[in-house]
Amino acid sequence: MKLIEKHKCFNGDQEVYSHNSSSNNCLMQFAVYSPQKKIDAPVLYFLSGITCNEQNFIQKSGYQKFASENQIAIVVPDTSPRGEDVPDDEDYKLGKGAGFYLNATSEKWSQNYNMYDYTCLELPKLINQNFDFSKSKIGIFGHSMGGGGAIQCAIKNRNLFKSISAFSPICSFHKSNFAKEARDKYLSNNIELINSYDPLYLLQNNKNLDQIKIDVGLDDDFLDDLFINDFEKICVEKKQQLIINKHKGYDHGYYFIQSLIEDHIKFHASILT
Amino acid sequence: MKLIEKHKCFNGDQEVYSHNSSSNNCLMQFAVYSPQKKIDAPVLYFLSGITCNEQNFIQKSGYQKFASENQIAIVVPDTSPRGEDVPDDEDYKLGKGAGFYLNATSEKWSQNYNMYDYTCLELPKLINQNFDFSKSKIGIFGHSMGGGGAIQCAIKNRNLFKSISAFSPICSFHKSNFAKEARDKYLSNNIELINSYDPLYLLQNNKNLDQIKIDVGLDDDFLDDLFINDFEKICVEKKQQLIINKHKGYDHGYYFIQSLIEDHIKFHASILT
Repeated sequence: MKLIEKHKCFNGDQEVYSHNSSSNNCLMQFAVYSPQKKIDAPVLYFLSGITCNEQNFIQKSGYQKFASENQIAIVVPDTSPRGEDVPDDEDYKLGKGAGFYLNATSEKWSQNYNMYDYTCLELPKLINQNFDFSKSKIGIFGHSMGGGGAIQCAIKNRNLFKSISAFSPICSFHKSNFAKEARDKYLSNNIELINSYDPLYLLQNNKNLDQIKIDVGLDDDFLDDLFINDFEKICVEKKQQLIINKHKGYDHGYYFIQSLIEDHIKFHASILT
Repeated sequence: MKLIEKHKCFNGDQEVYSHNSSSNNCLMQFAVYSPQKKIDAPVLYFLSGITCNEQNFIQKSGYQKFASENQIAIVVPDTSPRGEDVPDDEDYKLGKGAGFYLNATSEKWSQNYNMYDYTCLELPKLINQNFDFSKSKIGIFGHSMGGGGAIQCAIKNRNLFKSISAFSPICSFHKSNFAKEARDKYLSNNIELINSYDPLYLLQNNKNLDQIKIDVGLDDDFLDDLFINDFEKICVEKKQQLIINKHKGYDHGYYFIQSLIEDHIKFHASILT
């Protein structure tokens, strides 16, 4: 692990590290915010949306104030493998910046695009080994592609992630236009594999989680492609506790995330602390 | 005026406009945050540092929460003229992104580089004509080049700007290495002109302001080039009320601004409301 950025922020430290990822066979970067009292601090993983790297959330969401107030560490992985040797595509919904938190199986992508293993296995292990944060009080949240990613990771890793929330998540990996290229190219359109990363399918076919918090803007240009109403419907049918708020006038971007970030961090803090 | 961005944020609106600037003879962009109760809201102008445009502060400082809580409008101009026809330089301390809030007098630069007139005359007039904010409860603050800019603008326009604060301001336009190219190229090294934009000179040779608030990080890589101790010394000599805080471990960037932004907005609110 190599420290490549360090800035004091709200009495804690905003850092960025690089390391060689065994899951993705490339150099990866991640960001970590350490609150003043690091020892045994709860840890929240934030999964970003398409086109982002680890910088967008740490620069634009204003989360540090609330991580500091609640003394929570926040870890922000990149959204895909990086580097010259890593395959890419001209479509922004495929390749670099669009890892979709899955393990690719097709020949072209499987060597590097293993963001599911990276996010749920490799990175938590690396954090546990190198920081004094809590090894058990761990939550996950995310935005858009990363909101869907957080939900699918949480459902399949309930011993790891104890709290889950999402901003404007892509709830249907099966149906979302955003995910079409990912389904076709990373997973060769294999239905079983697609199911295994689909929040709606996983919700329907697994034991309920304790609670899920979702916020979405009603002026979100991508609203129809998120399938949030379908998610809500299954939650009602399954009696899955869902705290969902739909916000008039807000769009899909970081000005929306910024407006709700305190609320999400407090939600996780109330469960983890 | 043309609206080019609008996002709901903390119940207010983060907008960006473009307009033809008569001071700078080019198309300029500025950002404006309107709180929910816009009518007669106090207005704060934020002047950014070298390399910035209107986007840096609105994306990275997290100010919107506190503008909303204090129901203050915030206007963020660009730091220089823009466009293909505007002269520029390879040195990042000269040309686009480095207007230094002055009126250039040299032939090459004087047609476009008139950020002093733009900031103190043209933009406030445009805001007054197009928004329902207060016409009298107006303050100014800024960062680095823009911190020095805010101080010199406030000293010379005390009927316009009623409150003044700065993050890590360049206090000596005369001595700062950051400003060398600006002195040489925009003002042909004319001493009288340099004096007229120099916070230290202006402080020494004008009636005191009510109070000035300054915050600076002690791990700021540019600390020696800001001449803040000289500024403090003159304030003591002149009995200028100065609220200065020096913060251990903080650097020159937006993670520092973000950590102190609530404090600055509350300071202005306490004077303006």
